[in-house]
Amino acid sequence: MTGEGAEAQAVAERSAEVMLANDRATAALGMSLVEVAPGRAVVAMPVREDMVNGWGTCHGAMVAAVADTAFAVACNSYGEVTVAGGFDITFLAPSRPGDRLVATATRRSSAGRSGVYDVSVTRADPDLGAVVVAEFRGRSRSLGRPVEGGARA
Amino acid sequence: MTGEGAEAQAVAERSAEVMLANDRATAALGMSLVEVAPGRAVVAMPVREDMVNGWGTCHGAMVAAVADTAFAVACNSYGEVTVAGGFDITFLAPSRPGDRLVATATRRSSAGRSGVYDVSVTRADPDLGAVVVAEFRGRSRSLGRPVEGGARA
Amino acid sequence: MTGEGAEAQAVAERSAEVMLANDRATAALGMSLVEVAPGRAVVAMPVREDMVNGWGTCHGAMVAAVADTAFAVACNSYGEVTVAGGFDITFLAPSRPGDRLVATATRRSSAGRSGVYDVSVTRADPDLGAVVVAEFRGRSRSLGRPVEGGARA
Amino acid sequence: MTGEGAEAQAVAERSAEVMLANDRATAALGMSLVEVAPGRAVVAMPVREDMVNGWGTCHGAMVAAVADTAFAVACNSYGEVTVAGGFDITFLAPSRPGDRLVATATRRSSAGRSGVYDVSVTRADPDLGAVVVAEFRGRSRSLGRPVEGGARA
Repeated sequence: MTGEGAEAQAVAERSAEVMLANDRATAALGMSLVEVAPGRAVVAMPVREDMVNGWGTCHGAMVAAVADTAFAVACNSYGEVTVAGGFDITFLAPSRPGDRLVATATRRSSAGRSGVYDVSVTRADPDLGAVVVAEFRGRSRSLGRPVEGGARA
Repeated sequence: MTGEGAEAQAVAERSAEVMLANDRATAALGMSLVEVAPGRAVVAMPVREDMVNGWGTCHGAMVAAVADTAFAVACNSYGEVTVAGGFDITFLAPSRPGDRLVATATRRSSAGRSGVYDVSVTRADPDLGAVVVAEFRGRSRSLGRPVEGGARA
Repeated sequence: MTGEGAEAQAVAERSAEVMLANDRATAALGMSLVEVAPGRAVVAMPVREDMVNGWGTCHGAMVAAVADTAFAVACNSYGEVTVAGGFDITFLAPSRPGDRLVATATRRSSAGRSGVYDVSVTRADPDLGAVVVAEFRGRSRSLGRPVEGGARA
Repeated sequence: MTGEGAEAQAVAERSAEVMLANDRATAALGMSLVEVAPGRAVVAMPVREDMVNGWGTCHGAMVAAVADTAFAVACNSYGEVTVAGGFDITFLAPSRPGDRLVATATRRSSAGRSGVYDVSVTRADPDLGAVVVAEFRGRSRSLGRPVEGGARA
């Protein structure tokens, strides 16, 4: 990694640390950060019994939650406070308690303060390998101020 | 209400009851059903301290969760098990602990087994009245089997 | 209509006139403005033989085009130049040459410079009445300058 | 390329040929197929004067049209008739007459008859290289019958 790359990586790690330190929702849902890099983040979340809907599968909003968190970490990885303008999610397969969801977010495009991030949420299947549970696309807007000091005390 | 209307209303209420009885995610997030009718549902959720992201505002996925639940109740209100194919959400204003989010879902269109539902999420503001926090649009697919007996035991 | 209402209506009509005068795409596709009011527009487009895809039905992008134009007229109806940040469309029924598509756009919400508009595209069916062909949701951003004089010469 | 790969490529090429032979909308808009492969398509479209909106830039629906066509070719490349359930598009930069739009579609995920395809629309900029004009995500549904013979006569 070049000096510039190492610095960008340090910014990404520091931004994630600052953000997640105060993110109580992410902690309450048992998420953990697996990886962060400039424009990229991987977040994992085991599906718990209290995340299940009336059909016995993981509530769609809980699948969206792990994707949204990976998106938030990825779009803040450049060190500027960046918020979600919105997102779209398509559900492709169910997940259940005992599954571990892994959301991998990558920056697809950006222009000015706007960004588009793609997030795939997968679960490991003993027979099929990684099964895609949902595809998420986030729309971000940078606020133009640094993450360091941007989070609430 | 006519006899037919009364029956449709009874189906809507019974479907919501069956669905929510086993929906542990909805219970864990402190949501309550305010109203249900054919093609329509209102769900409320107080924003708790453990729903907050790194910026001190309600995590976007928690806003999506209350909208998604109202969507699920509304699209199952005709008595057929109906699942989310996906949804899109646009965030318009932040919300914070102490706010009470109210998600109002209404059916917009349907064709065959596909449906489109709109959900507005608002919070009460002492000065401005109801402030729109987010607009959500859900895409549903009916599975063609009855809600009664369709939920897990 | 009150004096204020009459003025808002005049702004809506004048904005549509200015926009559409230079909108060559709309003219080339044979669209016509049926109605405009503050936050609302209705645009019609007959489906032509040259709008058909390989399956003999109207190309999805042509359905999107009439919706997008109704959205553009509606979101510019307050007299400020407003552009599309993006949109989502769900297709519910096919349409064919000879059908007349009617797109009805209404403002759903706005906050600051952001707006959300819903557009239903329908066609008349001799037996079923109005059939919904597609549901479209547009995301708008106002640029904060007047439509009058904002269009190209 | 293996024998299997060569056959899949032949199916992709033949499917595109069948589809586009009868796609009058695509022809009327001056689009050309640059490339097709299993799960992938590249379509180009020069922006014409009659594709311009009231602000002098390419109409958003025309940008969507080239993306939608690349999506259609890509999702039919496996030889099964596949239609659009819907799509989402985010606009990132304007384009103008004289620009050549290039839409590159790739399959992101699929499950059963459902698929998710990503399409980037770019234009060449003399100084900046490829500029992303829009990001499009399509939702597809296979109808389970072959493209060969599936198009109208």
